[in-house]
Amino acid sequence: MSPDQLSTTLAALADPTRRAILARLARGEASVTELAAPFEMSLPAVSKHLKVLQRAGLISRGREAQWRPCKLEPKALKSVDDWLERYRQLWEQRLDRLEDYLRMLQTDTPQEKAPRKKQEKQRGRKK
Amino acid sequence: MSPDQLSTTLAALADPTRRAILARLARGEASVTELAAPFEMSLPAVSKHLKVLQRAGLISRGREAQWRPCKLEPKALKSVDDWLERYRQLWEQRLDRLEDYLRMLQTDTPQEKAPRKKQEKQRGRKK
Repeated sequence: MSPDQLSTTLAALADPTRRAILARLARGEASVTELAAPFEMSLPAVSKHLKVLQRAGLISRGREAQWRPCKLEPKALKSVDDWLERYRQLWEQRLDRLEDYLRMLQTDTPQEKAPRKKQEKQRGRKK
Repeated sequence: MSPDQLSTTLAALADPTRRAILARLARGEASVTELAAPFEMSLPAVSKHLKVLQRAGLISRGREAQWRPCKLEPKALKSVDDWLERYRQLWEQRLDRLEDYLRMLQTDTPQEKAPRKKQEKQRGRKK
């Protein structure tokens, strides 16, 4: 994916309605009419959002003349994830430093608080 | 982070120069002059990009009147990562299906090709 394609993908994601459309498509294919229903939007307005998502490689459209179902394309989202990869280390380091600080504070507090803090750290991490 | 803050962050990231600025700041704090140098951009042009990044919560600025160093704030990037989390499963499932398909093709091909395919899969995965 070229840097400009990544910019196009990120710009397409920078809209709550388009992200909601992707969340709906993550559950399965849908037609334009099905996508328009929960947003109370006109079909042309939804079609415009779909064109932006399609240009960004985030969705594809079926070939059937009448129905043309929309389908999520996770590959474009993965390109965003790949870009984020180099920064992941930075916030994980911060979590480590925070944990060190909490552990230092803990030396004078009861032991039962420890498991909860460990859980909080794991929630913020990748599996 | 509110949905609109996430939109602001994604919009700020949808520009190759701003992503290059973040890549530079990932290596350490820098002044506006230091950031402008590799891009051959005017200081006002860089300042404009920095304002967008700051509004998106992606960087912060120091308080020193003269120098005001810029600093990366990984927390905003983590919010993008948290949003991506629900989709990660989708492309990992696709990689699993691709691996099944490759394994099926492999039944008639030499064994030495296997390690490379395994490597390719792991590269695309989270640790």
